[in-house]
Amino acid sequence: MMTESSMNGLQSPVVAIGPSSFGEADAAPLRQLESAGVLVKPNPFGRRLNEEEIIAHLDGVDGLIAGLEPLNARVLESAPTLKVIARVGIGMDNVDQGTAEHLGICVSNTPDGPTAAVAEMTLAALLTLSRRLVELNEDLHRREWRKRLAPGLAGRTALIIGLGRIGRRVADLLPAFGVCVLGCDPALATDEFPTEVEAVSLAEGLAAAQIISLHAGGNQPILGQAELAHLSQGCLLLNSARGSLVEEQALISALEDGRLTGIWMDAFGQEPYEGPLCDYPQALLTPHVCTYTTQCRSEMEGTAVANLLRDLGHGVR
Amino acid sequence: MMTESSMNGLQSPVVAIGPSSFGEADAAPLRQLESAGVLVKPNPFGRRLNEEEIIAHLDGVDGLIAGLEPLNARVLESAPTLKVIARVGIGMDNVDQGTAEHLGICVSNTPDGPTAAVAEMTLAALLTLSRRLVELNEDLHRREWRKRLAPGLAGRTALIIGLGRIGRRVADLLPAFGVCVLGCDPALATDEFPTEVEAVSLAEGLAAAQIISLHAGGNQPILGQAELAHLSQGCLLLNSARGSLVEEQALISALEDGRLTGIWMDAFGQEPYEGPLCDYPQALLTPHVCTYTTQCRSEMEGTAVANLLRDLGHGVR
Repeated sequence: MMTESSMNGLQSPVVAIGPSSFGEADAAPLRQLESAGVLVKPNPFGRRLNEEEIIAHLDGVDGLIAGLEPLNARVLESAPTLKVIARVGIGMDNVDQGTAEHLGICVSNTPDGPTAAVAEMTLAALLTLSRRLVELNEDLHRREWRKRLAPGLAGRTALIIGLGRIGRRVADLLPAFGVCVLGCDPALATDEFPTEVEAVSLAEGLAAAQIISLHAGGNQPILGQAELAHLSQGCLLLNSARGSLVEEQALISALEDGRLTGIWMDAFGQEPYEGPLCDYPQALLTPHVCTYTTQCRSEMEGTAVANLLRDLGHGVR
Repeated sequence: MMTESSMNGLQSPVVAIGPSSFGEADAAPLRQLESAGVLVKPNPFGRRLNEEEIIAHLDGVDGLIAGLEPLNARVLESAPTLKVIARVGIGMDNVDQGTAEHLGICVSNTPDGPTAAVAEMTLAALLTLSRRLVELNEDLHRREWRKRLAPGLAGRTALIIGLGRIGRRVADLLPAFGVCVLGCDPALATDEFPTEVEAVSLAEGLAAAQIISLHAGGNQPILGQAELAHLSQGCLLLNSARGSLVEEQALISALEDGRLTGIWMDAFGQEPYEGPLCDYPQALLTPHVCTYTTQCRSEMEGTAVANLLRDLGHGVR
């Protein structure tokens, strides 16, 4: 994958690849790097790199196509040649942006890429839980013909917590399924809510909705024991945002006593996740793959490569 | 459940219940029957009745709230007191309507009830397959963290076979997910297709689409070896309509060689189904439950009761 060539007549820049899946959905972004004369240093482990591994991987490189590997102060300070970080994705929790700025490292992300794919996955998980597809399918593969009645979506009320790009897109998709949409977002004034979304407080929304979907940022818990106490029986909780937004013990209590009859988690406080939710059949669990569709990866990787090439041309370090 | 009362001052009519799930979603339709002075004879087996059982169940009854039990000529001729059949659902394959008419038995169904619930289930199955939710969830419950790339829906093309109420509703829901919709229906002229659906022939549609969804009536196979030969690699097939519309051996061949990477079947030629598809993990299988949501059952059962009470009042026999 290393090719000798040059860029603007200078020495070829070297770019390390963080995400193990880079190029898997589509070879075009990788070819785009190579045809720009970049020397590409692929992820040598085929999985997310830890702190020591990313320090070694960044040795002598000019740029990084970044996934979720730790890019903390120690890592960045150990990479004196690094000028550009182009993150494939939206979340920047793994990047110490203050240190990067102090060191003159140019950092970018792909904020628009994930919206459609994350909203699609949220609807997929919601419909799977609402129609009990996992249980019905397991029954029939065991040759057990059992008609289970499911809640369905029509006539239900959903609370969207956080109305950024993704929350708004989920709110757009729900009314066609007969779902009434409430929303809460402390960053928005009531007149800034989308027209199809009724603005409520968190407590009001939790008491009124049968479906709760988290699309907030930050790492502070939003749903703990006190908040989940507002739920009525038989609710569904969807979390595509951050694992740390929900207190796991509170979640498990609500599953145990039937306030929650189903949950979907794609993000976890500690990843890879192997905690107690793995033992709950009511939990639909996915390994942080909301953006893992062919089209979404291809678009985000292409955007990250374009950002990286732009910033390598303007590197200030 | 039997109560002595009267209707219009005459002897109380007796009504047998076919569907084992009647009243499970909502007690109101059953109460509506009882408060109209009907003597209710519940399904004694808690499952679908066979020919001998339904003959015994119909002994001396005036009306039947019908599910999918066989109501063929022999059964109807063995029920001399039967005046009214009110089917909970849309399909009438289990009712010999010619014989019923000849015998003066009034037959009704609930044609509007299932539309939203069947379309919702079709989207649920499509999204589950498109995002590989069953595999991802199984992995993580085994504590295996494996990011699988999924095709997703955005940018795909779907072929809707049969544009009746349900096919049209599915076609309405798809564009919001970035899906381009083709349709074929020999009963429609090109200018009768919904505006968002491009009219194609079956062969054109099968060659162009990555998603095929069956919403046709009848019992003649539509998809056999010859038709499935048009598919490209990696397609998804959805069947919420009738099991007999697809030849099972042709389906299995297409699964084996990768033309189909996923299928969903809710209807089967023989039910309860326990055939070879149970052994294919790529097959998402559900036990004829497209209408098994709380709201849909409640609405359809209420409509069937209203139809039955109307027709008992106007019985011509």
